[in-house]
Amino acid sequence: MRRPGKRLTTFESAIDASIRRRGLLDGVSRLVLAVSGGPDSMALFYSIVRILAASESEVELVVAHLDHGLRAEAADDARHVERAASNAGVEAVIERIDLTEMAAQRRENLEAAGRAARYAFLARVASDRGAAAAATGHTATDQAETVLMRLARGSGVDGLAGIAASRELAPGIRLIRPLLDVTREDVVAYCADRGIAYREDATNADLERSRAFARHELLPRLERVSPGASSNLARTARLADDDRVYFEDLVAGLLAEWGVPAEGVVVLPAEAVAALPRALRGRVLRESVRRARGGLSRIEQSHIEAIDGLLGDGRHGREVVLPLGVRAVRRRGALVVESDVEMR
Amino acid sequence: MRRPGKRLTTFESAIDASIRRRGLLDGVSRLVLAVSGGPDSMALFYSIVRILAASESEVELVVAHLDHGLRAEAADDARHVERAASNAGVEAVIERIDLTEMAAQRRENLEAAGRAARYAFLARVASDRGAAAAATGHTATDQAETVLMRLARGSGVDGLAGIAASRELAPGIRLIRPLLDVTREDVVAYCADRGIAYREDATNADLERSRAFARHELLPRLERVSPGASSNLARTARLADDDRVYFEDLVAGLLAEWGVPAEGVVVLPAEAVAALPRALRGRVLRESVRRARGGLSRIEQSHIEAIDGLLGDGRHGREVVLPLGVRAVRRRGALVVESDVEMR
Repeated sequence: MRRPGKRLTTFESAIDASIRRRGLLDGVSRLVLAVSGGPDSMALFYSIVRILAASESEVELVVAHLDHGLRAEAADDARHVERAASNAGVEAVIERIDLTEMAAQRRENLEAAGRAARYAFLARVASDRGAAAAATGHTATDQAETVLMRLARGSGVDGLAGIAASRELAPGIRLIRPLLDVTREDVVAYCADRGIAYREDATNADLERSRAFARHELLPRLERVSPGASSNLARTARLADDDRVYFEDLVAGLLAEWGVPAEGVVVLPAEAVAALPRALRGRVLRESVRRARGGLSRIEQSHIEAIDGLLGDGRHGREVVLPLGVRAVRRRGALVVESDVEMR
Repeated sequence: MRRPGKRLTTFESAIDASIRRRGLLDGVSRLVLAVSGGPDSMALFYSIVRILAASESEVELVVAHLDHGLRAEAADDARHVERAASNAGVEAVIERIDLTEMAAQRRENLEAAGRAARYAFLARVASDRGAAAAATGHTATDQAETVLMRLARGSGVDGLAGIAASRELAPGIRLIRPLLDVTREDVVAYCADRGIAYREDATNADLERSRAFARHELLPRLERVSPGASSNLARTARLADDDRVYFEDLVAGLLAEWGVPAEGVVVLPAEAVAALPRALRGRVLRESVRRARGGLSRIEQSHIEAIDGLLGDGRHGREVVLPLGVRAVRRRGALVVESDVEMR
């Protein structure tokens, strides 16, 4: 896939800068692009094609499209994507599933089942084609929606980190989001400028009730009183992600120092934990519960605060019982977190 | 003001717990209560009266009410507050201003001028009466509104910290918010339960356009898709405040180690700063700009990132020029942040 190295547009340069700054394509010689046919993923496809051509990159592309079998027009979406790929000389892998049946089998709602099916499909295509990475077209606007939804659900500061620019999709395969620094508005303007045709309803996001709400109700209203709200939220998410990484490293270091295993009973030096600043103490306790139980589902901030209360009250044998069989017990100089039920 | 020690209601116990946990009344023998006559401040007044009585506390109360001269019914609000105070045997200080004229003189909008006038009035009453603290009736719902507004404006993670439970109002006088752990719903239920009469429109919050929007448009919608959204947002704010305090201490420690003065030209060891985790690096640079310029107005995240770029590129003399006469210059092993215009 070579093209004469034309000048990149502002939009493409922004994507290119994100890719370089975050090292998204480092060590990648084949890249799978998730393309639904909607504006975001079509913009992803065209901009990546242009960026690779401009730098005469050797990275090979594979387009992956999953038809959820939900809408009558879905076959047209697939054809649209196939044609775009073929015009650019890129291989396209199209697969059709029956999401309604799949969701019923998995006893999940369409939203959760659809997300799982899309990422499993991407991982499979990447693995089959020997690709080290797969990219999706999530934008700063998706990021803002995610942050709002998570805030409303109460995921705490670390949850604000939102959509990661790069994470593991499967062993040896990274999931990357090169459009995370541009907004949906930028995407639509780019498609209009470059004459990129897209399918209006080919987006998967509206499957999610709360995301659809954030998209159609919340963000437009926020933008009206605070222009730039979406970009502002996305920027906050990026900064929150820096904080999350920082605290994760710090907590892992402390637990290693105290000889806490990655899984199983956690024994903490109570006095040392009590002396930590509150921001760190809460995260140490949360990670301890995660290690003792193999997960954090149904654990709330109030539970962490109840365990924190054991640090101040050193009476031997005092304990706090949390959901799903987790107990934190004060044993002389130690705070022990253990689980009766293993969630693994 | 003594009353037989009756059992506290759940609402009052929650306020009492907040006060104790945060040490809000430590060292306070006289307390000024800001009472507009609306539900939040009437609940503040009655619950504090009851809590002090139950513990046979010696803390003396003074009620402070500021009439902004904006509404015809404002005189009724003042009378309502005066009567409530007098019934409980508490002194009330009522003052009337012409906010419209004051705002015109100060060239501020009503919102900003009103806030400034209220806090100045509170500080004056506290100082006149020798009170070590003044309390306002901000609730978890106000907190949630503030967090949403700040997110939309892009104040970053530290801005998420929202309304502080305790901060300095004037030298020697603290401003405290004992209702920060209860919601507006709790307040209204408490008023109904205890037969506490309040003035419907006596709130100052609707003066703020973006807060009114958050209150009437955003939060009710968020609550509908995510029940508990307000409390969740308020909890996130509390955790964000822990993080803010943590990073503030850490950054102050680092700058002290490097001999950076509280005001004036900042000289940073470029290599050491470059080696910091990103979460810390951004905050070190932001605080450096604040110290060099005496403030952060018009400084955006993109400016901080531009300065950050100078750490990677060590060429002598490379510089970044920021708004209002701030420059960051690379000088061999040092990164110098200096200001031509002092904002102090």
